[in-house]
Amino acid sequence: MRIVDLIAKKRDNKILTKDEIDWMIKNYTGGIIKDYQMSAMLMAIYLNNMTKEESVNLTMAIVDSGEIIDLTGIKGIKVDKHSTGGVGDKTTIVLAPLVASLGIPVAKMSGRGLGHTGGTVDKLEAIEGFKTELPLEKFTEQVNEYKIAVAGQTANLAPADKKLYALRDVTATVSSIPLIASSIMSKKIASGSNAIVLDVKVGNGAFMKTIDEAKKLARAMVDIGNGAGRKTTALITGMTEPLGYAVGNTLEIIESIEMLKGNGPKDLIELVLELGSHMVVNAGFSSTYEEAKGLLKENIENGKGLEMFKTFVKIQGGDEKIVDDYSLLGESKEIIEVISKEDGYIKSIEAEKIGICAMKLGAGRETKEDKIDMTVGIKLKKKQSDAVKKGEVLAYMYVNNDKYKDIHEDVVNSFNIVKEKCEKEKLIYDTIE
Amino acid sequence: MRIVDLIAKKRDNKILTKDEIDWMIKNYTGGIIKDYQMSAMLMAIYLNNMTKEESVNLTMAIVDSGEIIDLTGIKGIKVDKHSTGGVGDKTTIVLAPLVASLGIPVAKMSGRGLGHTGGTVDKLEAIEGFKTELPLEKFTEQVNEYKIAVAGQTANLAPADKKLYALRDVTATVSSIPLIASSIMSKKIASGSNAIVLDVKVGNGAFMKTIDEAKKLARAMVDIGNGAGRKTTALITGMTEPLGYAVGNTLEIIESIEMLKGNGPKDLIELVLELGSHMVVNAGFSSTYEEAKGLLKENIENGKGLEMFKTFVKIQGGDEKIVDDYSLLGESKEIIEVISKEDGYIKSIEAEKIGICAMKLGAGRETKEDKIDMTVGIKLKKKQSDAVKKGEVLAYMYVNNDKYKDIHEDVVNSFNIVKEKCEKEKLIYDTIE
Repeated sequence: MRIVDLIAKKRDNKILTKDEIDWMIKNYTGGIIKDYQMSAMLMAIYLNNMTKEESVNLTMAIVDSGEIIDLTGIKGIKVDKHSTGGVGDKTTIVLAPLVASLGIPVAKMSGRGLGHTGGTVDKLEAIEGFKTELPLEKFTEQVNEYKIAVAGQTANLAPADKKLYALRDVTATVSSIPLIASSIMSKKIASGSNAIVLDVKVGNGAFMKTIDEAKKLARAMVDIGNGAGRKTTALITGMTEPLGYAVGNTLEIIESIEMLKGNGPKDLIELVLELGSHMVVNAGFSSTYEEAKGLLKENIENGKGLEMFKTFVKIQGGDEKIVDDYSLLGESKEIIEVISKEDGYIKSIEAEKIGICAMKLGAGRETKEDKIDMTVGIKLKKKQSDAVKKGEVLAYMYVNNDKYKDIHEDVVNSFNIVKEKCEKEKLIYDTIE
Repeated sequence: MRIVDLIAKKRDNKILTKDEIDWMIKNYTGGIIKDYQMSAMLMAIYLNNMTKEESVNLTMAIVDSGEIIDLTGIKGIKVDKHSTGGVGDKTTIVLAPLVASLGIPVAKMSGRGLGHTGGTVDKLEAIEGFKTELPLEKFTEQVNEYKIAVAGQTANLAPADKKLYALRDVTATVSSIPLIASSIMSKKIASGSNAIVLDVKVGNGAFMKTIDEAKKLARAMVDIGNGAGRKTTALITGMTEPLGYAVGNTLEIIESIEMLKGNGPKDLIELVLELGSHMVVNAGFSSTYEEAKGLLKENIENGKGLEMFKTFVKIQGGDEKIVDDYSLLGESKEIIEVISKEDGYIKSIEAEKIGICAMKLGAGRETKEDKIDMTVGIKLKKKQSDAVKKGEVLAYMYVNNDKYKDIHEDVVNSFNIVKEKCEKEKLIYDTIE
């Protein structure tokens, strides 16, 4: 086999076989196929697309480039959940203990964040002492005993994806449906769960800007997951404003706990119940989404979800007292008001802009080496469709230094204020399975 | 400017500006833009094409990456001629002296061949003592005095093309019209001629397999040439059999001399007169092709073309006596007959196969380092539409060692023999200007 022939094949819009894709990924990972050849292939894939079968084969070849986590030691159907990334998205922090509180094993490997705010693992580390480095054996034991574990990825999962992603980033081949889908799904499949629930974000704050694009990506990922024998469902959900009110690590932990106490913001509640019901159904614990939602609501109301969160924090080394005393999480030095300059209604809040502002305050990483400042961030006061008066507070910036002065104006401008009353946009657009 | 943005632009089928193309070629030549980025760009160009203006801009950026030969010291309109490469193509060797014999300055820079047989410069070196390394000053003086000079390219012409070509070769991006056209035309434009006549070959022995493809390439090259201020014409000519009878360096020199003596094969005569008439008209020497053809025929009949060939050989260091005594060119050790196994008519002769056989005998280079064996090659006995009987000679192999035994069968199989009488295919398909 010669890579130049395979590039020509994809260039001419022909279908690559499983053997060809396996050979290509193996030899690219091994350094035999050069970056300049793979980038030509990636552009050909970008422009000519891949069939469902090619995408499954590409994903499985990437899975096979590294370790595959064996979760068979955990009893029951393991359900994983993945979001394509939104601003203020703390659903995993709520969902993991809430679903586990029903007796469903939640064995989650989670990445660190590079971008606006931290990833789930970063956010959990806002709790002092919380450890996310769990050896597989301890991870397995913990899920069997307590039904819950969230760990950072330490295994060498899908190294071909890491290499491919770095190349896509510098060759304008990132935003290709089969390439995004295989990248995400290879890591999910290598993580060993039996079922996967995907949250595909759409809107100004998300990678997919239109419903049509988001649906295509969701369809590709669901096809890959099901093709690899994992029961996979994707929800298409809106990101025309940050999720909930809190953006920033400690702030999001607090909002997650409040949600488990029954005080969650409307949009976060809706999304948690929707995603959660699919996790419960895919785990075979309920047969209808309505029933599943009822069970989840019940465990918020009766405090079982919160109890599981405490257990979760404790067994992973953190202080469960934070649940009742947020001051134990630490606080930022100052809270700065962001004031509206006009009267009107909030039409939308540019989530990406808010995310970048939070990152600049220190809540996220610009480069891999950056350290996250846990206590900083942005807390919205106003959300989509709210009325606002000139001089009223739009948001609060939680800050530890003077940098906020440079971004203050950007936070103001993230709010699109119009004269006419406006409606909240839909949060759940579609379910793909 | 960032290359990743330019790749994204071409990927999204938008038009690159002159500044963007200049910046890209400059920084690629300078090593700042990496091969893995350029190969993604090349694939995007391959799949999304380039406009006429982009192709001109790309070509001129490649021209500007190296030296540009200044031929202004040569009086008159300098006409260059280029063929996209065919088997047995010795037209330049005939045309250079024939056109010069009319008083038109022929200042030709020619490449060496990599492939089936040698390039024009290699073929001329089959004449002992013939020197193709001419410093520009001597080259200019010689054309002013004798109207003719053919030299190997010593200047650093279009180095970006060399780098791009090497990358295209390993990334399946060779056969793209704007990339082929800019590659050929950048070298022609950098060579400094005022007018260019292109011979675009089409057929089984050529790079372009269909008339439609050949026309597109011709159109692209003519647009680039004219866009760069060089009067450019392209002929689309057939390559369904080798041109003339001789394939191999010494053999082709002899056939060229025979043509100037009035004994040329029909197809070679037709092509030489057609290409030559365009050179003569583009040089402003005649106003009609018919008149130009008449002048060229005349200078074959009256021996002036042959006389100019002798002068040409002599001034470049060769022995002009070879014109009257071919044995001075040296001879191969053996001549092997290739015999027909069947009765019938020659429907076609696979030119590429014959070229590869000649190369394997030693007439061409497989790698840049290979030395050419001047006296070996293949001389056809039968051409398209000829009748043949079982046991008759189809061709002769001129050989210096035993290697011919391995290719004997391939030479036989290059002849497609059918039972029904068949016509000769057209040689000149179209003129693009």
